[in-house]
Amino acid sequence: MYRSRTCGELRIENLNESIVLAGWVQKARKMGGMIFVDLRDRYGVTQLVFNQEVNAELCDKAAKIGREWVIQIKGTVMERSNKNKNIPTGDIEINVAELNVLNAAETPPFTIEEDTDGGDDLRMKYRYLDLRRGNVRANLELRHKMAFETRRYLDEHRFLEVETPVLIGSTPEGARDFVVPSRMNPGQFYALPQSPQTLKQLLMVAGFDRYFQIVKCFRDEDLRADRQPEFTQIDCEMSFIEQEDILQMFEGLTKHLFKVIKGLDLSDFPRMTYADAMKYYGSDKPDIRFEMKFVELKGLTTGKNFAVFDDSEYVGAICAKGCADYTRKQLDALTDFVKRPQIGAKGLVYVKYESDGSLKSSVDKFYSQEDLKLWAERCNAQPGDLILIICGATEKAQKQLSELRLEMGSQLGLRDKTKYCCLWVVDFPLLEEDEELGRFFAKHHPFTSPKPEDISLLDSNPGTVRANAYDLVINGVEVGGGSIRIYDSELQKKMFGVLGFTEEKAQAQFGFLMNAFKYGAPPHGGIAFGLDRLVSIFAGLDSIRDCIAFPKNNSGRDVMLDAPSTIEQEQLDELNLIVK
Amino acid sequence: MYRSRTCGELRIENLNESIVLAGWVQKARKMGGMIFVDLRDRYGVTQLVFNQEVNAELCDKAAKIGREWVIQIKGTVMERSNKNKNIPTGDIEINVAELNVLNAAETPPFTIEEDTDGGDDLRMKYRYLDLRRGNVRANLELRHKMAFETRRYLDEHRFLEVETPVLIGSTPEGARDFVVPSRMNPGQFYALPQSPQTLKQLLMVAGFDRYFQIVKCFRDEDLRADRQPEFTQIDCEMSFIEQEDILQMFEGLTKHLFKVIKGLDLSDFPRMTYADAMKYYGSDKPDIRFEMKFVELKGLTTGKNFAVFDDSEYVGAICAKGCADYTRKQLDALTDFVKRPQIGAKGLVYVKYESDGSLKSSVDKFYSQEDLKLWAERCNAQPGDLILIICGATEKAQKQLSELRLEMGSQLGLRDKTKYCCLWVVDFPLLEEDEELGRFFAKHHPFTSPKPEDISLLDSNPGTVRANAYDLVINGVEVGGGSIRIYDSELQKKMFGVLGFTEEKAQAQFGFLMNAFKYGAPPHGGIAFGLDRLVSIFAGLDSIRDCIAFPKNNSGRDVMLDAPSTIEQEQLDELNLIVK
Repeated sequence: MYRSRTCGELRIENLNESIVLAGWVQKARKMGGMIFVDLRDRYGVTQLVFNQEVNAELCDKAAKIGREWVIQIKGTVMERSNKNKNIPTGDIEINVAELNVLNAAETPPFTIEEDTDGGDDLRMKYRYLDLRRGNVRANLELRHKMAFETRRYLDEHRFLEVETPVLIGSTPEGARDFVVPSRMNPGQFYALPQSPQTLKQLLMVAGFDRYFQIVKCFRDEDLRADRQPEFTQIDCEMSFIEQEDILQMFEGLTKHLFKVIKGLDLSDFPRMTYADAMKYYGSDKPDIRFEMKFVELKGLTTGKNFAVFDDSEYVGAICAKGCADYTRKQLDALTDFVKRPQIGAKGLVYVKYESDGSLKSSVDKFYSQEDLKLWAERCNAQPGDLILIICGATEKAQKQLSELRLEMGSQLGLRDKTKYCCLWVVDFPLLEEDEELGRFFAKHHPFTSPKPEDISLLDSNPGTVRANAYDLVINGVEVGGGSIRIYDSELQKKMFGVLGFTEEKAQAQFGFLMNAFKYGAPPHGGIAFGLDRLVSIFAGLDSIRDCIAFPKNNSGRDVMLDAPSTIEQEQLDELNLIVK
Repeated sequence: MYRSRTCGELRIENLNESIVLAGWVQKARKMGGMIFVDLRDRYGVTQLVFNQEVNAELCDKAAKIGREWVIQIKGTVMERSNKNKNIPTGDIEINVAELNVLNAAETPPFTIEEDTDGGDDLRMKYRYLDLRRGNVRANLELRHKMAFETRRYLDEHRFLEVETPVLIGSTPEGARDFVVPSRMNPGQFYALPQSPQTLKQLLMVAGFDRYFQIVKCFRDEDLRADRQPEFTQIDCEMSFIEQEDILQMFEGLTKHLFKVIKGLDLSDFPRMTYADAMKYYGSDKPDIRFEMKFVELKGLTTGKNFAVFDDSEYVGAICAKGCADYTRKQLDALTDFVKRPQIGAKGLVYVKYESDGSLKSSVDKFYSQEDLKLWAERCNAQPGDLILIICGATEKAQKQLSELRLEMGSQLGLRDKTKYCCLWVVDFPLLEEDEELGRFFAKHHPFTSPKPEDISLLDSNPGTVRANAYDLVINGVEVGGGSIRIYDSELQKKMFGVLGFTEEKAQAQFGFLMNAFKYGAPPHGGIAFGLDRLVSIFAGLDSIRDCIAFPKNNSGRDVMLDAPSTIEQEQLDELNLIVK
């Protein structure tokens, strides 16, 4: 061992102890005949002192060391005259008697500090230096702790972690697979799992009863800021349960994590149907840290010759408390916000409920004070409030209003990152219609069970069938989702039919699962959490990238490793492949 | 919840309780007016009773259920008249009041019993049924527990589990990589990691100090019985440590596992140099559950006109206690054993030390009783013992003698699977010479540190340089191995030179690591355990396959999923690939 102690643990109680420390030089500064060095390791920072008068030779040696050098020192713990209350070791310093340089270091391309001067690209290229920064390391420490506590909770509840294979078969349904050519089976390919969905269902058929796995999954999709080609799921499945059991078990897990990681006792999570979530928040993952629910005004707005509203399927409002004093400029900015192509609203109508009780709107030409009063009443608005209205085709307008609601929540400071509001969204639709293709897709996946009372609608009106499917939403972010599965091979066959699979195609892709169901499948269901997202919420991060040790950029590249890259011709030949 | 209790927990204390159970029908049998059903779940088996006299309709319904049907029952816990002491629930049975068939089942293709009638291929195809067998499930329960306890131990010792990427760059050195074509970077490929070796070293450069990961690794090699294309490692690395610290830490982990899993308190593990392991056991992973060390006889055998020995570089013996009474047939079988092509010995010489003190050998023509007496003395043989001798080129002959030693150990019952002997093998050679290619390869990997006192030999006599490398061996199986790493970029450069890398090639393949070392690399080292192998030793299995949920066969196929398989033309086009 190159040290007897870490740089984070020495206190005033250790006074006069002889110790050995090793770590990186955070900074070194000269003051008169003294040199002060901040020595850093994973556990903290400790101040070292070299004194010219006591040992000139040693002091000269210390004068040569630079930032990020790796050194080992032997010395004695002394009380500081100038205490630093900001760090746990701030009461002491080390009077150094011996200095060994373990490794010199070139000057790093950016500063190793929480507030670094390094840009994104540079930090990713030198990720091993970026990871030295305390805040980045803290994210990964948090990730370790969350994964460990997840395992502890699930182990206590008799879940077994079972590793499922990474080299599996390709399923063209859903997102695009990454594939792996097989040298031993020329012309054939493995696929990397998008999730262990079918395998965990097979484990239920196998009687494993309670399964989980913290597991890498893969999707070859065009990447957005917050997506990675490889990501990690907390994947879970249970047998002989109903939806309520899953919600209870995993609400318990979530509460456990908040308790042990953040010391928070969360109360029971509210539940909301998908239908209500769309109606009141225009989103299947509402941020319920603040109210500002949608209010439908269609009935109150028609027949007053305002064609824009009259021709709209939907007219919806939100009420922004205390915003009646918004300036022209602020209102224009909001209009610009909803008209951005990503949101796509045609415009924004406002009604200011002035403090004197009068109502002032951008549609005064068409609506009287009495009309506006009725709107305000329905919106539960008070003098001083601002009503914001969007109209259009229902689904689109609700989505636009949802973006506006979130923006207003941010502007009003209602989206505090240290406040956590968890929500179960339930009763998702089973199917989603692709109007262009004229066919239905599984909203969740083809194994999701319809609600028993809706099964009869599968033939007559598939779009209205609700599923036993649920999402866990925290602060407007979907962190987990799952469903009760179909466990009857006849119903599964019917489901594939509704999804437009021929029997041959269903057999070719999922035959192993349907066959398995013939040998005694138990009722089962499960859930999967996105670990990256869950950690990023706990860490208060805007991107999942900062809680991943070695993330890829938006082109799927690891710029540190310079991967992917070309491979040697010999490798291609062995795989029987030609690059076009 | 479909049950109030599991099938493993009801006892005589639960008498008269109303309960609900769900599970699979293990078997059903009629006796007079009664039907007895063994209901099975992951937790155990409980006997159900249906009585014709009490409820004829229910009894008729029960008569129709078959093996592996999934049922739910409601009933009352009763005392059995005929107790079954072999199972924990054997004192009770359930008087059934209600029976619900949750799922019927076709007759499984093999019996779901520990001693199944299913052959290997059939069991793999229907792995989800094979996994219902208690002994197979127990292996996976053990695996879960070992992984969990490994994490607990390492977490307690402040290790952080950090996930490293699965999609990395290809390194043509070492074994063959599996590669993954990148759609977004046409003509380029990711590789799946053979181990996170370089990434964990980067984490040390990043100051992570103590890292571990239980992680899937991949090797595209021709498979043998006990190899899988994907396998799981317990991968670990530490900073500011020396070899002794690693041995202590992971001896601690191994002892922890034996303690909590098997209730065994192991004493400190002996250590043996690689040189001694080869000299005394002819193997770098000696099975030290039994002695039977090699004895060199070369000096005692030369000059007696026995050309076979005279011309041999090496003459070595083992002494099999109490085997002097081996028959001609038994000795012939041993000779055949060592002459098998896998072992390749030319022949076998024996000396029987008869109980009357006389010595009888297959080379009596050349050696006198006095000669043989000297051999026996050196072998520490007693009357009644059998001396077995193999000769040839040193390395080959030692390997052959090692196989013979293991065979004799087995024949003498000295390789008890419930006895565990752990051993550290240390001081491995740094390099291995490929005589055909006339170049050196890294015995462990190119980042392994030579022993400081041997560095000067790197130029003059590279083959004799010893490494700070170590293996953990249990019962003759290598379960883990690691090394102290080079952390000086100059020494690393020199090492690449010895291995015949041009500077360009070293830069292209490992530039990111050598660059990282320039920014302050700490002294570090690590170890990796093969989890599959470790579990299989704990489970007493002959193959790692039985502790893997969904293993692949020797052609790398998953016969259950029928993977790998062909993919659609569209997928190939997107990847810019043509299959030859």
